[in-house]
Amino acid sequence: MAKKLRIVPLGGLGEIGKNMMVIEYGSKAIIIDTGIMFPENDMLGIDYIIPDFQYLQDRDDLDIQAIIITHGHEDHTGALVHVLEHFPAPVYATKLTMGLLEIKLKEAKLLDGADLHVFKAGDVLHFGPFKVETYHTTHSIPDCVGLGITTPAGLIVHTGDFKFDHTPVDNWPPDFAKLAEFGQRGVLLLLSDSTNADQPGWTPSETVIDEGFNRVFRDAKGRVLVATFASLISRIQQVANAAQRHNRKMAVTGYSMVENIKMATRLGYLDLPPDFIVPLEEAKRLPPNKIVIMSTGTQGEPSAVLSRLATGRHRQLDIKPGDTVIMSAHPIPGNEEPVSRTVNKLIQRGAHVIYHPLEEVHVSGHASREELKLMINLVRPQYFVPIHGELRHLTQHGLLAQSLGIPQDRIAVVENGTIVELKDGKMTVGERVPGGYVFVDGAGVGDVGRAVMRDREILARDGFVLAMLTLDAETGELLEGPELTSRGFVYIPESEDLFEDARQNIRRTLDKLDRSLSLQKRTERLESALKTLFHQETKRRPMIFVRIHEV
Amino acid sequence: MAKKLRIVPLGGLGEIGKNMMVIEYGSKAIIIDTGIMFPENDMLGIDYIIPDFQYLQDRDDLDIQAIIITHGHEDHTGALVHVLEHFPAPVYATKLTMGLLEIKLKEAKLLDGADLHVFKAGDVLHFGPFKVETYHTTHSIPDCVGLGITTPAGLIVHTGDFKFDHTPVDNWPPDFAKLAEFGQRGVLLLLSDSTNADQPGWTPSETVIDEGFNRVFRDAKGRVLVATFASLISRIQQVANAAQRHNRKMAVTGYSMVENIKMATRLGYLDLPPDFIVPLEEAKRLPPNKIVIMSTGTQGEPSAVLSRLATGRHRQLDIKPGDTVIMSAHPIPGNEEPVSRTVNKLIQRGAHVIYHPLEEVHVSGHASREELKLMINLVRPQYFVPIHGELRHLTQHGLLAQSLGIPQDRIAVVENGTIVELKDGKMTVGERVPGGYVFVDGAGVGDVGRAVMRDREILARDGFVLAMLTLDAETGELLEGPELTSRGFVYIPESEDLFEDARQNIRRTLDKLDRSLSLQKRTERLESALKTLFHQETKRRPMIFVRIHEV
Repeated sequence: MAKKLRIVPLGGLGEIGKNMMVIEYGSKAIIIDTGIMFPENDMLGIDYIIPDFQYLQDRDDLDIQAIIITHGHEDHTGALVHVLEHFPAPVYATKLTMGLLEIKLKEAKLLDGADLHVFKAGDVLHFGPFKVETYHTTHSIPDCVGLGITTPAGLIVHTGDFKFDHTPVDNWPPDFAKLAEFGQRGVLLLLSDSTNADQPGWTPSETVIDEGFNRVFRDAKGRVLVATFASLISRIQQVANAAQRHNRKMAVTGYSMVENIKMATRLGYLDLPPDFIVPLEEAKRLPPNKIVIMSTGTQGEPSAVLSRLATGRHRQLDIKPGDTVIMSAHPIPGNEEPVSRTVNKLIQRGAHVIYHPLEEVHVSGHASREELKLMINLVRPQYFVPIHGELRHLTQHGLLAQSLGIPQDRIAVVENGTIVELKDGKMTVGERVPGGYVFVDGAGVGDVGRAVMRDREILARDGFVLAMLTLDAETGELLEGPELTSRGFVYIPESEDLFEDARQNIRRTLDKLDRSLSLQKRTERLESALKTLFHQETKRRPMIFVRIHEV
Repeated sequence: MAKKLRIVPLGGLGEIGKNMMVIEYGSKAIIIDTGIMFPENDMLGIDYIIPDFQYLQDRDDLDIQAIIITHGHEDHTGALVHVLEHFPAPVYATKLTMGLLEIKLKEAKLLDGADLHVFKAGDVLHFGPFKVETYHTTHSIPDCVGLGITTPAGLIVHTGDFKFDHTPVDNWPPDFAKLAEFGQRGVLLLLSDSTNADQPGWTPSETVIDEGFNRVFRDAKGRVLVATFASLISRIQQVANAAQRHNRKMAVTGYSMVENIKMATRLGYLDLPPDFIVPLEEAKRLPPNKIVIMSTGTQGEPSAVLSRLATGRHRQLDIKPGDTVIMSAHPIPGNEEPVSRTVNKLIQRGAHVIYHPLEEVHVSGHASREELKLMINLVRPQYFVPIHGELRHLTQHGLLAQSLGIPQDRIAVVENGTIVELKDGKMTVGERVPGGYVFVDGAGVGDVGRAVMRDREILARDGFVLAMLTLDAETGELLEGPELTSRGFVYIPESEDLFEDARQNIRRTLDKLDRSLSLQKRTERLESALKTLFHQETKRRPMIFVRIHEV
């Protein structure tokens, strides 16, 4: 009897199947990507988020044959160290992607134990029942792949993150032939990137940025500083090309960017002439119009180089009037505010700041609607599952597939943790397993849940007040206190009256309290009285703690 | 001797002169607009922000002749109740703007004491040395004005919020003739809206939305729900027009929207046939394709109708499969995340959700670069001060003015609180006065400052831990405790080991402590030991409080 083929999108924050996906046939499985997400603004104190892979831990019958990483961005690579801790499977990636993974594994001291395999786009990999044909695709980082996965149930095409860039920075266009060949062979299921499924038209090629950079470099009188993601290797190449055309040398700030540039140069993904990169200290001695500085911080992250420059907190560098700063990345949704603030502060310090749409200094790395149509018509799948995007993007991608003639009942818009099953040439949407996310906060993985987050929300909004008092155990008389401690509630030096009211309120409530009540009951009464008083006086609801000590 | 004309932009959050501006000549002053801003994501617990008008309180020599409100949006009206409390000056506004102000004043029980004056665009108002010629302009709400203010120092043009809409919903285009006439007469200073100064081209007319609405209403099989701002009176008219063309009646949810529609209908700014508006309960009995529901909540605000519908928390309404929801507003920067979440949740409940760019259901109310050029060339000012926008927008607007031939030294890009002075036909940038903002949190105005906000940030990130213990005052021996209380730090049921470590850490530290140390010193040592322990174990930095009770 034929076994079931199961597709299990896991984790991520609204983004379906982006951070991690499991493909299983019988007891054999492969994992595609192991990424992290960054927390939303109301996930207070959380450093990052990893997929919840409890499902894999529950399926101890499952034999994980390989982890395949499609490209080197954080949202596809960042959770590898967490996944390997539980599932030390062999890892497969292209050369550049592996270079970026190795930097991460080294930092986590996991490099020695890891079983790493480099392949190149076009290679065919065999894992039990899966034949994985890798093919070259284009995105905003070089050396990306999509996957054609032949299974006993049929051929699945997984696009990875992609756009169809005819003129990528590395001159290596996507492998249209392979996609067309899949289409001719007959594709059971297409899993396709939906990030820009609500964007009309065709996403511009990475190389439109070259002209934008050229214009900015031509007009810049002083130093040029370009901020982008540390993993945007091809963007760094573009900056280097513009810098050379305008006789500037490059200095690099920030640990991750320095490491990534070293690695990419060593592996041949960056083509930089000798002596082109100079140390920051040397750059400071060169004439301002002879230098370009690369940095991170396009998302307004407070600890990144750019934010420190914007607020004058960088030890080696200052922003000076005459500097030109290029923001070569869009704000990730949710980061618009800190990004605007960074830009405004750089302007306050005298910098000329260039960002989209003032000049073409960034383009999206994801396919827009016309490209998505081309993908569907090249691959001509029987079934379609949109992936990589929020529910709203998947929905639009599903409607788009319908408009190309794929029947509605052959399209499944699913959320993380919903299993898609294929058997006897039929697709069904199966059971729901845990497919959410796990918070990583400091050294803790998953120890901050909803209860802690809710408390943080209350504390963040209105703070807390603690009242301590000592009572005579016999008479119930107030011997000491009440001593009040408060943080995050009101500005204490100006609220002495309010706190005096609170102390009197406690005394009055104590006087009226039945002394035969349990300590807990009396504590609750006092807390409730304080809650009422503070809300009446301030319309705020701080957390209230009363601690009674009886002697 | 000629007196100085002074322009003082006050308050606002990055947005210069938007929320409030003072124009003074000698001891006479007028105030233009009194608005609020909404807090940014990291201003924890703050309800809204009002301009800091300490400057006016310090200038008790100043005679405030009038408060002129240019249009009825919150960021120009919302702080009027706070300003009137300190400066009970007469208020001037057009009919619709005054209608919206009266609803606010009534809620604040300030309507009776207020001195309100309605004018219509084209009216000329006299306040001491100021002759104010009001002129009609277009934005995203009807009955907007700009101001030509003749002073002894010269003519100032203040654009208010504007775009040049040739086909506004109310068919009343902007008064180009008046602007051109100002230009011929000779304008000393132009103060112009910079919100979209980084957007190329020309902002589309409000009426492009009519076609968008028509397409959505034509295709909608079930109920249509349109979410927008309660003050977007012309958008409500457009929805009503589309609804009538498609034989739907309208139900309205939400207090502010119901009140605004009543007022605008009464004053003739909304043209709705009798029996067109039906109560929500009646709407629920009509066939789904006969109804459109208006609601607020386009910014993902948790308490607004749309968010409650998205999470199933509305008492009277449910979202059902087949419903179409139109998001007729852009997310204000910083709100992208909650808006996306609301959209995704509505889709989860089966709604078809329409938002920009899927369909033209919203356009900006502010002039883009080509319109800004037209404004400058109509008015042909000697001096130019860009207003209404963040520093980055003002900077771009300043560069744009330069590109039209205004010399750089006649353009002043200033921040809130920076006084611009005009005397003898010359503009100078003068002193800096307090021009920031004041937090309104619950019933408190300005009692939450940076210290409280910083505490809220720490609490929001890592929570707190409180340790209470009782010591023998003679021997220093531990008699009771340590009792630990913690919130927002770790999930307590799973962290018993950590808290037991903390208790042992306190005991060990106490054993080693010199008992002759003051109570405060010993408290500090214990707090510092706990801080180290928690950071080692969790990499988090909760607030730590140790409270020692000696008996």
